[in-house]
Amino acid sequence: MITKDIIEARNAPRAADLEADYAALGARLARNGIAIDDLLARAKAFEVAVPSWGTGTGGTRFARFPGGGEPANIFDKLDDCGVIHGLTQATPRVSLHIPWDKAAPADLLAKAEEHGLGFDAMNSNTFQDQPDQAHSYKFGSLSHVDAATRAQAIEHNLECIEIGKTIGSKALTVWIGDGANFPGQTHMGRQFDRYLSSMKEIYAGLPEDWRIFSEHKIYEPAFYSTVVQDWGTSLLTAQELGEKAMCLVDLGHHAPNVNIEMIVSRLIRAGKLGGFHFNDSKYGDDDLDSGTIEPYRLFLVWNELVDAEATPGLDLAHMIDQSHNVTDPIESLMISAMEIQRAFVQASLVDRVALAGYQEENDALMASATLRAAFRTDVEPILAMARMQTGGAIDPIATYRASGYRAAVSETRPVVKGAGGGIV
Amino acid sequence: MITKDIIEARNAPRAADLEADYAALGARLARNGIAIDDLLARAKAFEVAVPSWGTGTGGTRFARFPGGGEPANIFDKLDDCGVIHGLTQATPRVSLHIPWDKAAPADLLAKAEEHGLGFDAMNSNTFQDQPDQAHSYKFGSLSHVDAATRAQAIEHNLECIEIGKTIGSKALTVWIGDGANFPGQTHMGRQFDRYLSSMKEIYAGLPEDWRIFSEHKIYEPAFYSTVVQDWGTSLLTAQELGEKAMCLVDLGHHAPNVNIEMIVSRLIRAGKLGGFHFNDSKYGDDDLDSGTIEPYRLFLVWNELVDAEATPGLDLAHMIDQSHNVTDPIESLMISAMEIQRAFVQASLVDRVALAGYQEENDALMASATLRAAFRTDVEPILAMARMQTGGAIDPIATYRASGYRAAVSETRPVVKGAGGGIV
Amino acid sequence: MITKDIIEARNAPRAADLEADYAALGARLARNGIAIDDLLARAKAFEVAVPSWGTGTGGTRFARFPGGGEPANIFDKLDDCGVIHGLTQATPRVSLHIPWDKAAPADLLAKAEEHGLGFDAMNSNTFQDQPDQAHSYKFGSLSHVDAATRAQAIEHNLECIEIGKTIGSKALTVWIGDGANFPGQTHMGRQFDRYLSSMKEIYAGLPEDWRIFSEHKIYEPAFYSTVVQDWGTSLLTAQELGEKAMCLVDLGHHAPNVNIEMIVSRLIRAGKLGGFHFNDSKYGDDDLDSGTIEPYRLFLVWNELVDAEATPGLDLAHMIDQSHNVTDPIESLMISAMEIQRAFVQASLVDRVALAGYQEENDALMASATLRAAFRTDVEPILAMARMQTGGAIDPIATYRASGYRAAVSETRPVVKGAGGGIV
Amino acid sequence: MITKDIIEARNAPRAADLEADYAALGARLARNGIAIDDLLARAKAFEVAVPSWGTGTGGTRFARFPGGGEPANIFDKLDDCGVIHGLTQATPRVSLHIPWDKAAPADLLAKAEEHGLGFDAMNSNTFQDQPDQAHSYKFGSLSHVDAATRAQAIEHNLECIEIGKTIGSKALTVWIGDGANFPGQTHMGRQFDRYLSSMKEIYAGLPEDWRIFSEHKIYEPAFYSTVVQDWGTSLLTAQELGEKAMCLVDLGHHAPNVNIEMIVSRLIRAGKLGGFHFNDSKYGDDDLDSGTIEPYRLFLVWNELVDAEATPGLDLAHMIDQSHNVTDPIESLMISAMEIQRAFVQASLVDRVALAGYQEENDALMASATLRAAFRTDVEPILAMARMQTGGAIDPIATYRASGYRAAVSETRPVVKGAGGGIV
Repeated sequence: MITKDIIEARNAPRAADLEADYAALGARLARNGIAIDDLLARAKAFEVAVPSWGTGTGGTRFARFPGGGEPANIFDKLDDCGVIHGLTQATPRVSLHIPWDKAAPADLLAKAEEHGLGFDAMNSNTFQDQPDQAHSYKFGSLSHVDAATRAQAIEHNLECIEIGKTIGSKALTVWIGDGANFPGQTHMGRQFDRYLSSMKEIYAGLPEDWRIFSEHKIYEPAFYSTVVQDWGTSLLTAQELGEKAMCLVDLGHHAPNVNIEMIVSRLIRAGKLGGFHFNDSKYGDDDLDSGTIEPYRLFLVWNELVDAEATPGLDLAHMIDQSHNVTDPIESLMISAMEIQRAFVQASLVDRVALAGYQEENDALMASATLRAAFRTDVEPILAMARMQTGGAIDPIATYRASGYRAAVSETRPVVKGAGGGIV
Repeated sequence: MITKDIIEARNAPRAADLEADYAALGARLARNGIAIDDLLARAKAFEVAVPSWGTGTGGTRFARFPGGGEPANIFDKLDDCGVIHGLTQATPRVSLHIPWDKAAPADLLAKAEEHGLGFDAMNSNTFQDQPDQAHSYKFGSLSHVDAATRAQAIEHNLECIEIGKTIGSKALTVWIGDGANFPGQTHMGRQFDRYLSSMKEIYAGLPEDWRIFSEHKIYEPAFYSTVVQDWGTSLLTAQELGEKAMCLVDLGHHAPNVNIEMIVSRLIRAGKLGGFHFNDSKYGDDDLDSGTIEPYRLFLVWNELVDAEATPGLDLAHMIDQSHNVTDPIESLMISAMEIQRAFVQASLVDRVALAGYQEENDALMASATLRAAFRTDVEPILAMARMQTGGAIDPIATYRASGYRAAVSETRPVVKGAGGGIV
Repeated sequence: MITKDIIEARNAPRAADLEADYAALGARLARNGIAIDDLLARAKAFEVAVPSWGTGTGGTRFARFPGGGEPANIFDKLDDCGVIHGLTQATPRVSLHIPWDKAAPADLLAKAEEHGLGFDAMNSNTFQDQPDQAHSYKFGSLSHVDAATRAQAIEHNLECIEIGKTIGSKALTVWIGDGANFPGQTHMGRQFDRYLSSMKEIYAGLPEDWRIFSEHKIYEPAFYSTVVQDWGTSLLTAQELGEKAMCLVDLGHHAPNVNIEMIVSRLIRAGKLGGFHFNDSKYGDDDLDSGTIEPYRLFLVWNELVDAEATPGLDLAHMIDQSHNVTDPIESLMISAMEIQRAFVQASLVDRVALAGYQEENDALMASATLRAAFRTDVEPILAMARMQTGGAIDPIATYRASGYRAAVSETRPVVKGAGGGIV
Repeated sequence: MITKDIIEARNAPRAADLEADYAALGARLARNGIAIDDLLARAKAFEVAVPSWGTGTGGTRFARFPGGGEPANIFDKLDDCGVIHGLTQATPRVSLHIPWDKAAPADLLAKAEEHGLGFDAMNSNTFQDQPDQAHSYKFGSLSHVDAATRAQAIEHNLECIEIGKTIGSKALTVWIGDGANFPGQTHMGRQFDRYLSSMKEIYAGLPEDWRIFSEHKIYEPAFYSTVVQDWGTSLLTAQELGEKAMCLVDLGHHAPNVNIEMIVSRLIRAGKLGGFHFNDSKYGDDDLDSGTIEPYRLFLVWNELVDAEATPGLDLAHMIDQSHNVTDPIESLMISAMEIQRAFVQASLVDRVALAGYQEENDALMASATLRAAFRTDVEPILAMARMQTGGAIDPIATYRASGYRAAVSETRPVVKGAGGGIV
């Protein structure tokens, strides 16, 4: 663990500069009628969940190259999540993946409490076969042609709910890889019917105060068709299931060129936006660190969310979902949490009264400039101040590196076997 | 006009070969338990509407290069449509575009009757300004921020319905270019609300036996966001309007890589598929001749449609919508009608019992092979026989060229002015 | 014209805030060892050319919606360019398009001198037919199958060089729309040979101190294949022609997802990067204002250019090439010039020593963070200071609007006819 | 092994129908002046290599679902390749991947001889770490910043050549995953320089009669930039290395919408086309069975190749490169070989004299129709006759299934461990 002492020791020499930067930014914002302390309060209140599996090194079908100190189990992962939240003060909840993270509830709760963490949405896994599994998911799970396979997948999801109930989770995220690799392989209509039928059984097992998230993805692992391929199918699903069913948007799950912030706007209007899986991408579902490839896109998504804050019933679950192949996962998760927070604060800066006026006048140029003015404001002093004042690090990466955490766990955690394996 | 005599004279020397090819194909299909005459009957019953505007040479923002004998008005266009239907026997209806095709209903009906034609869906135009228009559509039409502009656009659509009623049309297709070129230019949520509100007023004016088609398009002429950008928004629109509102799928209006036949399947299940605008494309909304770029995609769309033929309530409007920039538009429309018909007949060949069996067994390879076997069957003898037996041409292109039609109208129709103009 | 008095009057009330912001930024940069005055000097030295045709309202194949005071000829356009440069002090050169901008050289030079402007690369036009043209470009120009058509297109390019020589231009940009709409329409190999042969004839007419720019584009106006479709073909062309032939990169002319900054890097290494056509886009060649859709992409391009500044022989021509459909073109060109300049200054901020160190250590996270740190620095005070100190406007848009220039020219310039025309 | 007896027994009941179909097709082709026996001869002469690794079940980063009888080593793989060639008579050579397929040369040659097989291009692997490897490829191989890592990768490639020499191979294919996941992670220019430098060392070790193939890929496993990202960079590489260096085109390695057949045409003209990795795809590098997603694209590639057959020096290496995730790999490889052969024969049917005439006349419609006429000709009787006459199966899939081969090897080969593992 990285203690408060370590953090404070690293913050101390940076504090004066931060105060100066914060004051300078505050003065400039005040000139435009913006109170920096309001933004600071918003930054402090910001939260995004981290995925337990994101703390391990990811890979591609070609290879996986683990780093040192890979977490061997959910308790190691929670330790890593504790570091992330301790330094950024922005990630107080962890999202679990079953069966990867199965453990005794009491132990999970104890470990989480140790780090001041809670649990976010549960994630089921019917895209892989487990050693003792009766039926294979090679040809699908919730939408499989075989009733027994579907029943097994439904049962697994219900089990995820049961586990979640014991640790305080309030939502189940369902992402399946079901689809087809070739035209004709499946009857797309009947396959969707089977999926809906299975989802209804899961929905029936949902506690009163839970929600279920439907997550779409254009392709991968299926390469011709995917059952829930876009937000249209996700919406049909959520409509059919009922009011506890909502749509989850993963930023990397769309066709090239698609306007994602517009999908966000449409789902809000349809009353079916449930939350996000944040990451960034250039080609496919690249699962890169949030905000590192196209930061303006992330800002535009947040622009919709901040604009819609007052929408009745809007209650969003924000989570990071990434694959860290060439970086220390703890560092990537910290960077990502901060970039998401940055976009949120920048979007909070948009002069919405002016913007609405420009929109009414069809002043496209000034409307567009109004968004860019907010986006180019360097809000780092606000983010850093929020961290410092809540016990986090002014510079989480530098503090983490200085702490020697990775080296320490590299000594205590077992070395991962089969390092260089790939699938191709 | 290309008389029956001309057609028969060109058919005569080809008839024997056609009979031989038809017999050989029939024998081969019979071996697989398929009666070629059933397919012939289906081919004869096939219909696709042609767009009046497709008879003129199209262009790009860079230039337009008209050919000879460009139609100067709707009556010229109907003459051209008469040629297309006379030779292919597959295009008995014409879709009009208002205000381009405005004329006295009696004259329209008389000219159509002369060619044995009827009228398909009406198309409104609020993506261009007309000379005497009070309000500009520069910043939108049905979704414009200004109520008077919206009212004008609504009124225009209602007028299209009124015109359509006089000529036997039963549907209105609404495609708008409304959107934005820059982030922030419009409030995407409120813009959609205004669009829905306008559409409801049009819907209220729809006769009992009419339908209204909502058509989505990812981009162009708007380059950042488009109000009805994909089938999800089109579906939301049709759901909100009511049971007479259906979704129209244009094959060229999707993001790269999107699985269009899957959208077809989803809209069928949602009870909201209304019809198609056929064309082909490689990059954007290229509006190329149907079946010339990716013929298997066209087949896969028809595979869904043939599969769903027995769906209660499914009643589809099929129309070509293309831009003919480098070909004789009459030829391109004939080719396109025949390629669409070809895909329909090929899809009719799919052994659906075998396919369903393979799907049940997860035999992806044989399921896929079953579709390809139908696709690679050369059904040209069936198409040609259908044409010959219904008074059309065995080889429409050769017959058309031999007729001298284009040269003839080039002498009588005025030369189009401003030939080389472009917009850039 | 917008006089220095007007500009100064608008600058005066903004100057104190600017000085304060500049000082605050300078202090912060100094902390990282960066001298803000060096960046100011770079900002002042920055130049990007504007396209004469960009001063008129553009459009799409669907419609064009002109604004008030559209320039009626090259002299109006130069007046508008004078305004742009007067306010931004970043666009001292204008790029002409022939035949659109043909005029007596003496008059051109006199008008340019009036505004302190010079002339940049000449642009030929063989993608449209002109009224008195002997041969049509409907099926191509420099690559046409007909030798006489190619000769005409070659001759036109040679004429562009001749005109350019009279006004001080030193380069010819060749962009052609030649290609095909259908597989088989052209023999792609022989078509490319004809193109190269034509280009060699133009190259032979190039003065000693001129360069010729080959510009690639994936599609539009041709929708199946384009002769110079990507940088590979552009490179082959430049290699074949000789050392005066260079490749021009237009940011909107690539396939979806393509890494443009990598192409920049490759062309630099090949010794064949000649310059840029700046704009921004989301879908195709949208020709939107630079930096308004994906500003980080623009920064990454500049990151490559600043990194390569010391490359021997690297001499780049920077030009804006956009279509302004919904904004005042003067405003869009000013915004674009400033966004390009912003990316240049931000890229100049990159700590290249630190970056190189991270790259050597495979510290992907810190390397990436180093670029983002530069990108998120709000350099507006540097840009504004550069403008103010060189006689431009602190806020060019506000100053332009206050000047009443558009209203004034709307009264004196003729109203454009055929406003709402489209091609479809 | 599937004996000749088994094949003949399955062919016997199909032979009469085949003869009839062949005769009917022959008659129809003769009418157009085409001698079907010439096409038969071409079909018989056709060859495409199979990849040893393609005989095992592939997977994605999410999971791998092996089937029964997975090959445990290169000898099992060669047995499977023997089946493929025995039934299709189209795949007489196998391409090896080192180190996966390392074995004693004599044993390899003996096993190959047993099946009448030879060896095609060697494939090196520097995208994975092997158990005893000194330096990791996590951050690159031939382009790594560390000289020792580069040396190790070079050495491995030289070893591949040495192995290849012992088994009669004449080419080395180099595909690397080197690149970056984040902007800034690598200096793209210097990284390319290092790659070229390494390739030169490998090139220096190439025997006189060998060739080296450079293979480009837009992305994966690197998600921001890839060293050899497109054919432009591949061309630069081949130009720099020398005349034994050629470019390899994998059909699935391009950006969305890219015109691949045009790249083929350009590389032929540049004298640098070396061969192909065949597969099909819809989204990314999906590695699906050839001809199953977009068969017309495969035909258009072959149209270029058949057109260029007489090009001096053109000597192409054709190989399948796919990942079989949901099918029996042997079946997928047979289907793919036959689909590639089909496209080749269809392309051989193109009336090139007529096509050239249409191209000269800018008759886009008839030129395009000429290609489609060849494509829609069902050449299955020619392919089947070629197989039958050379000892293969009329219906390879049915014969394979009837043979019980998969069941037999499932009993003798060890069950693969770690079945359901994934990487995510």
